[in-house]
Amino acid sequence: MTVARESDLVLLIGPRGKRFIIRLEDGATLHTHVGVISHDAIIGKPMGRRLVSHLDKQFLVLEPSTHDLILNVRRQGQIIYPKESGYILLKMNVHGGQQVIEAGSGSGGLTLALARAVAPHGRVFSYEIRPEMQRNAARNIREVGLEDWVEFKVHDIAGGFDEQDVDALFLDVRTPWEYLDQASQSLKAGGFFGSLIPTTNQVSRLLAGLEHHGFGDIEVEELLLRQYKPVSERLRPADTMVGHTGYLVFARKVVMLAEPSDDSV
Amino acid sequence: MTVARESDLVLLIGPRGKRFIIRLEDGATLHTHVGVISHDAIIGKPMGRRLVSHLDKQFLVLEPSTHDLILNVRRQGQIIYPKESGYILLKMNVHGGQQVIEAGSGSGGLTLALARAVAPHGRVFSYEIRPEMQRNAARNIREVGLEDWVEFKVHDIAGGFDEQDVDALFLDVRTPWEYLDQASQSLKAGGFFGSLIPTTNQVSRLLAGLEHHGFGDIEVEELLLRQYKPVSERLRPADTMVGHTGYLVFARKVVMLAEPSDDSV
Amino acid sequence: MTVARESDLVLLIGPRGKRFIIRLEDGATLHTHVGVISHDAIIGKPMGRRLVSHLDKQFLVLEPSTHDLILNVRRQGQIIYPKESGYILLKMNVHGGQQVIEAGSGSGGLTLALARAVAPHGRVFSYEIRPEMQRNAARNIREVGLEDWVEFKVHDIAGGFDEQDVDALFLDVRTPWEYLDQASQSLKAGGFFGSLIPTTNQVSRLLAGLEHHGFGDIEVEELLLRQYKPVSERLRPADTMVGHTGYLVFARKVVMLAEPSDDSV
Amino acid sequence: MTVARESDLVLLIGPRGKRFIIRLEDGATLHTHVGVISHDAIIGKPMGRRLVSHLDKQFLVLEPSTHDLILNVRRQGQIIYPKESGYILLKMNVHGGQQVIEAGSGSGGLTLALARAVAPHGRVFSYEIRPEMQRNAARNIREVGLEDWVEFKVHDIAGGFDEQDVDALFLDVRTPWEYLDQASQSLKAGGFFGSLIPTTNQVSRLLAGLEHHGFGDIEVEELLLRQYKPVSERLRPADTMVGHTGYLVFARKVVMLAEPSDDSV
Repeated sequence: MTVARESDLVLLIGPRGKRFIIRLEDGATLHTHVGVISHDAIIGKPMGRRLVSHLDKQFLVLEPSTHDLILNVRRQGQIIYPKESGYILLKMNVHGGQQVIEAGSGSGGLTLALARAVAPHGRVFSYEIRPEMQRNAARNIREVGLEDWVEFKVHDIAGGFDEQDVDALFLDVRTPWEYLDQASQSLKAGGFFGSLIPTTNQVSRLLAGLEHHGFGDIEVEELLLRQYKPVSERLRPADTMVGHTGYLVFARKVVMLAEPSDDSV
Repeated sequence: MTVARESDLVLLIGPRGKRFIIRLEDGATLHTHVGVISHDAIIGKPMGRRLVSHLDKQFLVLEPSTHDLILNVRRQGQIIYPKESGYILLKMNVHGGQQVIEAGSGSGGLTLALARAVAPHGRVFSYEIRPEMQRNAARNIREVGLEDWVEFKVHDIAGGFDEQDVDALFLDVRTPWEYLDQASQSLKAGGFFGSLIPTTNQVSRLLAGLEHHGFGDIEVEELLLRQYKPVSERLRPADTMVGHTGYLVFARKVVMLAEPSDDSV
Repeated sequence: MTVARESDLVLLIGPRGKRFIIRLEDGATLHTHVGVISHDAIIGKPMGRRLVSHLDKQFLVLEPSTHDLILNVRRQGQIIYPKESGYILLKMNVHGGQQVIEAGSGSGGLTLALARAVAPHGRVFSYEIRPEMQRNAARNIREVGLEDWVEFKVHDIAGGFDEQDVDALFLDVRTPWEYLDQASQSLKAGGFFGSLIPTTNQVSRLLAGLEHHGFGDIEVEELLLRQYKPVSERLRPADTMVGHTGYLVFARKVVMLAEPSDDSV
Repeated sequence: MTVARESDLVLLIGPRGKRFIIRLEDGATLHTHVGVISHDAIIGKPMGRRLVSHLDKQFLVLEPSTHDLILNVRRQGQIIYPKESGYILLKMNVHGGQQVIEAGSGSGGLTLALARAVAPHGRVFSYEIRPEMQRNAARNIREVGLEDWVEFKVHDIAGGFDEQDVDALFLDVRTPWEYLDQASQSLKAGGFFGSLIPTTNQVSRLLAGLEHHGFGDIEVEELLLRQYKPVSERLRPADTMVGHTGYLVFARKVVMLAEPSDDSV
């Protein structure tokens, strides 16, 4: 049976589904609108149970998922949501042992998903031009214990990436079409390119750029998540939903061989 | 530079985006409607390039992604699609080192995603009642080289699962509400439960069952994937889309402690 | 050129798209968060122009559309939204001259759309069991000048409808399956049945009822409206959208002929 | 009770929901894959009933709805679907007595919805540059008996529209931004402008044009229709859905008054 120990990350779910992620600390307390919870009431006790606050409100005590951790990063600007992160992992072949570049670091939401996926033998290189932004991302990654798999770099990617032959490269920047030369130089032949951008105008410009740079297998996709009220006798979608996060653009780096004559069958 | 070697899995993308995944074999040939391609024209040459068939049609030669491999499994019945698999991984905290049960094995599409995610130190236990179904799934997993991380079991799960304290358990069966006792017995406290079911009636029955069995943090969600025609000057969604794959239901196993008095703050 | 006259309904659209519908009255004023507008500044002047409030904020002065009027009804409970109303009109063949029953009246949102569609020679019969609810609906209909085409009835529809052989009948009630006998008795043979219900459980029960009562051409549909930020250089969907209004169920009344032998070709 | 008469339009729904719309004619027959039906088996008999073909397959005999008639127009190119038509009617305030321009006529699908809505006192002016296209549209409108409310014109709209002060104007053309001067000259002040275009690039160009021409209350919207399998015990969305019809763009003509000083409160 899993028992909570000091310094563990713990997810508490209160009434109406409000979620709190805390790092357990002897003698510390969590203050919420529905009561106070002492960390000592959790440390040394089993996970996966119910607990009541001093106002007699019930909380669930749980291990947080990757999904929970991503939504919990301290945010500076928009994050990439788990519905997109999970799909990006499979589309861009991110798994144990891969070398992956991302730019920018943002708040580290995608970084977290990438780092978990490439561990223990792979590596994420996370570029960001704004130092304070990256400090926040790095802190978010350290807090979930994934710092060994991420190398953060404060760097203007206009000057290129330091790595060569990486397996995958993701651009979460406003003008990804401006960095396709740099992306191409760092990706291995056949490597996976991805980007997430909010407007159709950006998609059009990125598509033009990808074609111009000879990328292949270009795709544009969008994921919509619909949540339901989980009530057996009155099952129905939630009243509101997120209407837009962004358009996902995927492509593969394709190289020209020196001797095209070789290239035929 | 990555060079294709014998016995590598290679993705070929032909005109109009038609995709073929082959295992390279000296002297073998791929026959398509747009021409023949000799494996020898690929072996020993770089990946990530263009190649022409004997009918002078162009193909891309690429390493397949997890996404490609899932869509390529030899199917017996419906598979779980990558848009759901990727999301399941993050929601159910499936990452390196986790112990995960799934039932049924189906065609092995989700098995593949789970196995890649738990490697190299975790393990997937895949249950299936129909031996020929599982043989197909096992073959699909072997073909992508993930057999070391999956234990296949032909087994009626009504009799329970062999494992204890697994991190996550996914039910891809028609009547998941009939196996919640068994699921609960094998999940660790706080463990992740998931299921994918196509009808709203099934969702209602599963929700009632989950509540009855004391599961917590119950969620019902649906993912819609919208594909766009990737044309810079005429960007638009594809004319048709998949209208439904299934409803995702997630929950956490919650235990009752022996001494509720202990349970307060 | 259309000139605004006293007692006209006028739509004012202020900064950030805030909409106000007023009935013009000599000497009256509209007070908004962005300034005061005197009705006299509108009366006798052309429609379709810009006007500024005393705080120098710009407003558009426009004739309201059916869409605007529906969204503007004084609400008691949920209304049926224009995206559904417009579709209902075409699916249920509601046009000039038709006789249509609806129950309940609700806030009169659908009543308004139906009345505009059947005018000048048709008629809407609107049933409601709660007198104060119907008073509000009737007031909403009077305010847009459609009272000549609607007959409001405070009536428990369990006792049946007064009309016979109506062209179409719409049930906006919580348990539509309880009134299918009554609906069937009032619809003409082949008449159009419709309903809007929020939960899947209700849809299942209504479907069972419709089959049991011999209805034909049964359909279940859902309309999702996605709004975009109308910015040429940064076109993108709005951040949030309505996730659910309800499921539309349509069917046709089918009669059994006395002499089935007649029924063959 | 409604009885079918010669020359009535009748909707026949066969096994698996296949729909046929025929005009009844003494002695005529309908040949389908599931059997032959004699018109004489319908003429003089009640509507809203079941009938069997000579192969003993059951058909429903029904009056067609506006929705059915739109989907049934003889098509040359894409039509505007009822989910959009119904919404257009409410957004653009199209109802009895209104004067409406549309260009092009297309196959007459939207024309049909507009004509039904403006009858008996309004009028639709339908412009089309391709004579054979308009012949088809006109024939479609005649076949449903709406020719009295539609004036068809073979005309290049670059030269402007003949009408002045129309209530609403809809552009279903490839480059609507090229005709905004003409649209503006024919719309009354405050009149309703609408357009349906398939690509995001067109939307961007149209938005720029509308702003340039001083249109107000500009909106971009999209309607998605999700159909369900209407089975009580296995309720679920259909496997595939239409992924895209087009983006709806709405706006209002706004005029500049000669004396802006008059324009304040």
